[in-house]
Amino acid sequence: MASALAVQSCKMKSAESAAGGDAAARTYVAPGKYDELYNFVSGGFNGQVSVYGLPSGRLLKLIPVFSVHPENGYGYSEETKPMLETSFGFVPWDDQHHLALSQTNGEHDGRWLFANANNTPRVGRIDLKTFKTVEIIELPNSGGNHSSPFITENTEYVIAGTRFAVPIANQESALDNDSYKKNFKSTASFIGVDKNTGHMSVSFQIILPGMDLDLSRAGKGPSHGWFFFSTYNTEQASTLLEVNASQKDKDFIVAVNWKKAEEYVKAGKAKKMATEYYHNQLNEETHTAASEVIREVLTLDPEELKDIVYLIPCPKSPHGCDVDPSGEYIIGSGKLAALIPVFSYQKFIKAIEDKAFEGEYNGIPVIKYEAALHGEVQKPGLGPLHTEFDGKGNAYTSFFVSSEIVKWSIKDLKVLDRVPTYYSIGHLMVPGGDTRKPYGKYVVAYNKITKDRYLPTGPELAQSAQLYSIDGDKMQLLLDFPTIGEPHYAQAIPAEKIKDQSVKFYDINKNKHPYASPGEKATKVVREGNVVHVYMTAIRSHLTPDNIEGIQVGDEVYFHVTNLEQDWDIPHGFAIKHAPNAELLIMPGETSTLKFVPVKPGVYPFYCTDFCSALHQEMQGYLRVSPKGSNVPLKWGTGEQEPVAAR
Amino acid sequence: MASALAVQSCKMKSAESAAGGDAAARTYVAPGKYDELYNFVSGGFNGQVSVYGLPSGRLLKLIPVFSVHPENGYGYSEETKPMLETSFGFVPWDDQHHLALSQTNGEHDGRWLFANANNTPRVGRIDLKTFKTVEIIELPNSGGNHSSPFITENTEYVIAGTRFAVPIANQESALDNDSYKKNFKSTASFIGVDKNTGHMSVSFQIILPGMDLDLSRAGKGPSHGWFFFSTYNTEQASTLLEVNASQKDKDFIVAVNWKKAEEYVKAGKAKKMATEYYHNQLNEETHTAASEVIREVLTLDPEELKDIVYLIPCPKSPHGCDVDPSGEYIIGSGKLAALIPVFSYQKFIKAIEDKAFEGEYNGIPVIKYEAALHGEVQKPGLGPLHTEFDGKGNAYTSFFVSSEIVKWSIKDLKVLDRVPTYYSIGHLMVPGGDTRKPYGKYVVAYNKITKDRYLPTGPELAQSAQLYSIDGDKMQLLLDFPTIGEPHYAQAIPAEKIKDQSVKFYDINKNKHPYASPGEKATKVVREGNVVHVYMTAIRSHLTPDNIEGIQVGDEVYFHVTNLEQDWDIPHGFAIKHAPNAELLIMPGETSTLKFVPVKPGVYPFYCTDFCSALHQEMQGYLRVSPKGSNVPLKWGTGEQEPVAAR
Repeated sequence: MASALAVQSCKMKSAESAAGGDAAARTYVAPGKYDELYNFVSGGFNGQVSVYGLPSGRLLKLIPVFSVHPENGYGYSEETKPMLETSFGFVPWDDQHHLALSQTNGEHDGRWLFANANNTPRVGRIDLKTFKTVEIIELPNSGGNHSSPFITENTEYVIAGTRFAVPIANQESALDNDSYKKNFKSTASFIGVDKNTGHMSVSFQIILPGMDLDLSRAGKGPSHGWFFFSTYNTEQASTLLEVNASQKDKDFIVAVNWKKAEEYVKAGKAKKMATEYYHNQLNEETHTAASEVIREVLTLDPEELKDIVYLIPCPKSPHGCDVDPSGEYIIGSGKLAALIPVFSYQKFIKAIEDKAFEGEYNGIPVIKYEAALHGEVQKPGLGPLHTEFDGKGNAYTSFFVSSEIVKWSIKDLKVLDRVPTYYSIGHLMVPGGDTRKPYGKYVVAYNKITKDRYLPTGPELAQSAQLYSIDGDKMQLLLDFPTIGEPHYAQAIPAEKIKDQSVKFYDINKNKHPYASPGEKATKVVREGNVVHVYMTAIRSHLTPDNIEGIQVGDEVYFHVTNLEQDWDIPHGFAIKHAPNAELLIMPGETSTLKFVPVKPGVYPFYCTDFCSALHQEMQGYLRVSPKGSNVPLKWGTGEQEPVAAR
Repeated sequence: MASALAVQSCKMKSAESAAGGDAAARTYVAPGKYDELYNFVSGGFNGQVSVYGLPSGRLLKLIPVFSVHPENGYGYSEETKPMLETSFGFVPWDDQHHLALSQTNGEHDGRWLFANANNTPRVGRIDLKTFKTVEIIELPNSGGNHSSPFITENTEYVIAGTRFAVPIANQESALDNDSYKKNFKSTASFIGVDKNTGHMSVSFQIILPGMDLDLSRAGKGPSHGWFFFSTYNTEQASTLLEVNASQKDKDFIVAVNWKKAEEYVKAGKAKKMATEYYHNQLNEETHTAASEVIREVLTLDPEELKDIVYLIPCPKSPHGCDVDPSGEYIIGSGKLAALIPVFSYQKFIKAIEDKAFEGEYNGIPVIKYEAALHGEVQKPGLGPLHTEFDGKGNAYTSFFVSSEIVKWSIKDLKVLDRVPTYYSIGHLMVPGGDTRKPYGKYVVAYNKITKDRYLPTGPELAQSAQLYSIDGDKMQLLLDFPTIGEPHYAQAIPAEKIKDQSVKFYDINKNKHPYASPGEKATKVVREGNVVHVYMTAIRSHLTPDNIEGIQVGDEVYFHVTNLEQDWDIPHGFAIKHAPNAELLIMPGETSTLKFVPVKPGVYPFYCTDFCSALHQEMQGYLRVSPKGSNVPLKWGTGEQEPVAAR
């Protein structure tokens, strides 16, 4: 690594002078002007999704998905807690690796964004009208959901392939290679997406031999109907994979004929398996999430149904598996390989027809490498990982070890250009580069090592992205921008496809939350045993009620706060001293609920946490908590004068 | 508001054309180049501190302080959990409002950054060698810690003044104005800071009448020894403050003679009060936090000790209270006022000597307004909030209502320039602008409303900062940059004062964590009843052990993971499937601990969550969990071959 960095350091100088000239002008977005593209970036180990503007690299928003988010109370408010429930209990964190924008006819349609959770296998859906996570589905029979959430060209399915094989149905097993080969399975889950609502459901799972499915892409155009996964650890090692899963010269691209699998499911060939997983959805009328437990899944066995899965040998430990815009070429990137194999869909189909197999792997036919091969890019760099496309016949591959992006021609497999990255690029992204019609113009490198690229911030550094132009013959480095979390993978879409549909606030008259207060006159405090419901409103610049007496230690107090504002960007916040909780951040027209169980008597101030007006500091109140059994009568109000009318 | 925004919209055009020209070049930091300044920005309602680079506006790091942080396990790991303990239990969130860089001789010394928690009253200290929160102290007798953590010119004290008056010692009380006047008190806590270690302790508290202390600044130079607080709600209303706390024509600047207070404490005039609060510190050798409970605090009563507190009338509901670099001028900004009063320290002292009092307020002498007044800035704008300085005799005041920054001359109180902000500026910040030697060059506006400034992201928008140059006669808008959380207040310091002291990694030989594994040979699994300690190491590209059997449902499993790397920016992560927890992000040389109590039998994959090498995807292992009482023997290892030597 040390020497690789030294090489980088030498390359840096020329790259940086290249970044001079018009780079400042090309990336500067003047105050009040808009970025050209939304760039949705996986948060990696922060479990969230970030939205950057391009070309400025400015962080426009962080969307909480799989991790609790103290900033707006996601995972803390009663409305959002159910989003993070799983069959193993409340899971407040995940590792968010990949994103997929919904597609129609192989192009981004700007409706939804899908995100995977790698650690506790889940897929989330974000509504791009509100930029909110509206649905999370857990995956049964999965030990790590890495090759996910890639999608088919009309969003028929979102895929979820397992990274860690496990004994299915939560069985325990000894941990040795024999047990692994016998008991451990991989699964490829096909999550059906409702065309109108976006609602997800696990349509079926294909049970595969134990190995590590890594990445995946759907076929396009002619290859629509197929899904291609890269896989490593076809050695089926269960320990020291660094050594034991790097033994074989070739692992596989796993090709799944999902159209055929669908037919088998329709024909009743799928087996019902008992299981248990959670499906969490946000109700669009109440803005309250609820969990449903699902207890059955349909599975297909490719050892029995021989024509749904084929294996294509791919050197060595392939990571990226990418399909070009035409749908004809499938690129496997062996992270330990010194070449890039490009497979042809037509040749692959012909190989199946010709039965050009070299044998079977755990009962699944293995196609001869040469029979499916279009050709190899020779000596492109070290450690190829991922490939994206510009729609002009060019491919852009990231190289982790040699820390660079290499541009090459799909047709003749010639290397056309290369630029260094700082440092150790993982994924790269061309806007629309995974669709049938890439927008091109830029490629962004999402890097794993930051080191000396920014002012130092102690041992823990931000990770980083780099923006390059690709509209000329040569790639040009334009901008470094640090990221939060790990910028694992990304999607980008022209602003026009999203911006005008953005919801600005919620209609208070359509608020169906069961504890909403549609106006100040509806506010009240209701005791039901030791449960107390506070129906509260927030409007510039007061909370109603702002004085509440008669609460006792140990009461479960629910503050249901309705934001009465009806204008864009006037949220109110709510917090109460010493709550073992986060704040609420309540959008105009919405109701959110904070639960508070006081442990000591006293006077607890509460207030609006979002600076909302010149009198924001006055937007406060008190809760009186008396000792248990003190029987102070329930009383609330806004004091000596009537609330001013809503403005 | 609507019409104010319309006015803004007209002003915008000219501002934006002003932002053309050299603005792109002035804010562009070329790839590989460093920003000029560290800009530490309060996270507001996200409870954290963010570090931006200036002039690029790039987010270099988010430092978790008062809120849990799923990204790196802060508040989840066993080492960091004690940082968020309070006398009311674990509090995982707060509202982080203000920051203060430590000072020597009234200038930033680059050692520590102090941060306040507004909701559950606490002050945190960040070590600027590591950018880590190393200490959090809770404040007794406080109902909201807003006018905090401002500091004296040699970091003798960090101040913490209460925003919400409460009955002290957690007493309950009825909630009406009579009870308020009788029982509710404000407090000003003086937190002493150890010169060498930075360790904090509450030296004494001054008990003040019930009212809302808002902001605060220490005297400088001639006025060193004094602290000045703004206050509102001197009406002592306990309900509908929007109306009831806006009645009086003038509230106060509260002037505290802390040197005199110190003398009284030394002379034994302070009263001991029983209380209970937490003091949480990170041990520098083990990197493990521990909590200490403190049960006593010293208090001073200004009704008895007449010469420690004086009140200066200040129109109306003053918010900002700022002291100029010379220490002679104190600026109070009445958020409902149409002028800015500037007080003279010399005249204030003379007024005390002359007993130029207009009476007393709750037993505290009130100085005559005119006796302390240097002069008033007439018609400067609407809703003045805060003032910073450039060290050249100019003051810069933010105006929330008229949404602008106004530059004026301290000497002759003339308005010199004004620029619009987008929209509704709260604090503003000139680098070093609150010290004796401002660095100047820029002023940054931290705005409350974003609305149409960036691509829309649904109802919830990022907040925003704007960078202006102030090195010419006229201010010039250079850049808009969105922020995370609420960019409440900020500090900025030239990079040179910090960057070279930055720790890059921890020496593994100095790791004194009680469960550290200094090398792979030290790894083991130890059962103590139903508690299991896993001594684990992480190094590219394996975890040792990577197979653990003999765990039962309900066991408390502690994964103590030591990162054996000894190079910059090679963290490893650790997560296990379905843990109701966040990941660990472990810096080189450090040990971190994740607790996991499995609820179901099965095989649980674990893996490194931070992409660390070409074989990162192979850095994984399995935990076998058997049913309770199954007595599967404890077994662990890395399989058939010995671990490779550390590289």
